[in-house]
Amino acid sequence: MIASLRTKQPVVHCITNHVVSNFQANGLLALGASPIMGDAPEEAEELALLADALSLNIGTLNKVTLNSMIVAGKTANSKGIPVVLDPVGAGATSFRLTAIHQLLEEVDITVLRCNAGELAAIAGADWQAKGVDAGQGNVDVNEMALQIARKYKLIVAVTGETDIVTNGEAIEKIPYGTPLMSSVTGMGCLLSSVVAAFLAVSLVEPMVATTEALRFYALCGEKASEISQRPGSFQFAFLDELASTEQGIDNEPIRLEEDVIWKL
Amino acid sequence: MIASLRTKQPVVHCITNHVVSNFQANGLLALGASPIMGDAPEEAEELALLADALSLNIGTLNKVTLNSMIVAGKTANSKGIPVVLDPVGAGATSFRLTAIHQLLEEVDITVLRCNAGELAAIAGADWQAKGVDAGQGNVDVNEMALQIARKYKLIVAVTGETDIVTNGEAIEKIPYGTPLMSSVTGMGCLLSSVVAAFLAVSLVEPMVATTEALRFYALCGEKASEISQRPGSFQFAFLDELASTEQGIDNEPIRLEEDVIWKL
Amino acid sequence: MIASLRTKQPVVHCITNHVVSNFQANGLLALGASPIMGDAPEEAEELALLADALSLNIGTLNKVTLNSMIVAGKTANSKGIPVVLDPVGAGATSFRLTAIHQLLEEVDITVLRCNAGELAAIAGADWQAKGVDAGQGNVDVNEMALQIARKYKLIVAVTGETDIVTNGEAIEKIPYGTPLMSSVTGMGCLLSSVVAAFLAVSLVEPMVATTEALRFYALCGEKASEISQRPGSFQFAFLDELASTEQGIDNEPIRLEEDVIWKL
Repeated sequence: MIASLRTKQPVVHCITNHVVSNFQANGLLALGASPIMGDAPEEAEELALLADALSLNIGTLNKVTLNSMIVAGKTANSKGIPVVLDPVGAGATSFRLTAIHQLLEEVDITVLRCNAGELAAIAGADWQAKGVDAGQGNVDVNEMALQIARKYKLIVAVTGETDIVTNGEAIEKIPYGTPLMSSVTGMGCLLSSVVAAFLAVSLVEPMVATTEALRFYALCGEKASEISQRPGSFQFAFLDELASTEQGIDNEPIRLEEDVIWKL
Repeated sequence: MIASLRTKQPVVHCITNHVVSNFQANGLLALGASPIMGDAPEEAEELALLADALSLNIGTLNKVTLNSMIVAGKTANSKGIPVVLDPVGAGATSFRLTAIHQLLEEVDITVLRCNAGELAAIAGADWQAKGVDAGQGNVDVNEMALQIARKYKLIVAVTGETDIVTNGEAIEKIPYGTPLMSSVTGMGCLLSSVVAAFLAVSLVEPMVATTEALRFYALCGEKASEISQRPGSFQFAFLDELASTEQGIDNEPIRLEEDVIWKL
Repeated sequence: MIASLRTKQPVVHCITNHVVSNFQANGLLALGASPIMGDAPEEAEELALLADALSLNIGTLNKVTLNSMIVAGKTANSKGIPVVLDPVGAGATSFRLTAIHQLLEEVDITVLRCNAGELAAIAGADWQAKGVDAGQGNVDVNEMALQIARKYKLIVAVTGETDIVTNGEAIEKIPYGTPLMSSVTGMGCLLSSVVAAFLAVSLVEPMVATTEALRFYALCGEKASEISQRPGSFQFAFLDELASTEQGIDNEPIRLEEDVIWKL
């Protein structure tokens, strides 16, 4: 799938936060996608019309960019391109949680990409987040993911020590990656747009595309951690891996494996 | 010219997009210039008054920053400092194209620094852009650049496989650089402010200053590509080269060469 | 102190400029802190309530983020967490200077972290700044710092060739660091939030915490300069050092040394 992504070079429209916008654009370019980062309501519709996928991220949300997201989201829906939502720090403030619910109601989201703490906030579950980081809790993450996937009819991708992807029926687990990935700001944000780029080249199988995106990303993380174990240099080793990792997918497809899927 | 730039350390006021603002500021610092990045209308005039050059970039434009650009641009004009406009994604939305034409009409732009797709959008020519990237078309880029340079009485610098610089009379070609430069977000944006910094130390010869800026930049790209061929590490190797490349200009001036200029 | 910081992982709420927000978040993560970067007035109060320290930076200030800063600052005060103010380019515009005075009056600032030019602007002293950089002047920086510390009842930390920290009574001098630190944008901005993180784990001794933060930071700079003398690679070597430098503080505390304190 990465090979066809690099051939197609899908245009990914990102409405994202100013903390990670550079890293996200560089990550998409390294991957082989073509980022558009405009976030003004004045051009949200036209930019979404140019795109092959839309990636929404509420990391430094305000009323203006929320408006852009609604407009771009509806445009993406009418055009039939995938929409990924990254609900950064979902439980941190009522403004964020309200915005997420508005987005989930007014826009047809294809994939919700989050961490366990954000998922718990959306589900209204008991969870102790750490600022905008994942934190910890006693809720069953698999169960929460399944519920949210069914409730909103979308794919939920929860990253953590073991990533999970579910469409509300099957759950795929991705036990790869490295803890170093949480030492770089925007690793989750960039992943969400990488998922958008993978969806753009395989929208007919969004569950497969999402799972492959997470596997590819985790593999890049593991390879970069062989270059450096320190966050500054790891960050750029990771961008390098996004550009050069082949994953051999076209020869030997990494697909949903029977042993890690369990039907419900 | 780079030596006098490092001695004078010109203050370059950048009103730019949040995707590249960090890279642009770091690039200017590495070069030896002194960046000011404030973009609020509340201080646009005062910041422009402190500057030796103004660099405008519409990458994540909105109504507020457009207003800042107009105010800063008029201040720069009244003060007689150079103004560089980078019309990022010119053809992507009507908001951008309208803003560019407003800037071209209300502000005396010294150099328009763009890619072929953006130039085509400004010229109203038939061109297929790829999101906000250059894309391709059948129009003669040289001819377009000459027309725009004459129409708006400015210098047009179009980057691509071979860069061109024209004042509407002569065309200088710069066949240097590396394709890696398009794998890092903001390489064009940073170039536009590097042009502004070069203009600040040689405003009497803007055509020469622009051409030297593009040559210097392309040379830094080539040198960085000898350090790394991968986008993450290339990005920082490039900043390193901006800081250390001497170009031997003072000993052996790189100036407009007769053989690559053709009078019209 | 760095060991207890890494154990406690304090949440630092940063309302900062878009040029350095990525570097600041990555620096805090590398250090072992947990950054929150939301800057909208809609959530300023709730985010500050989640935080262990607040870091305010006016680098690309506008009316909206100034409002966020006031709200978050008052919330931090009522909660009793430390507040660090970084008055970037204080003397550059009247908008900045007015905003700084408003913040100093309406919010109880714990530490003012600035360069000599910014301090002079706040003090109303005669000084020639270079854009938003420090510049130079004939005023006695020690005397200015003492005056401002007494006037606003806060700690003043002025960075430069030799850093100074004063609470209006004692002055601590930190003659470490490397000139390379001024070749990377946001080094001062990140330092301000590092001070906030140190304060969060030692609020009872803010003078000690601030001094240790500056020493730790300068030490990381010196160590990174042994990795690279060029600004691109230095930047990431510096993040690496923030993550790995131990400083042996817990075994052999780096505290206010008698020989560098002089009582007034």
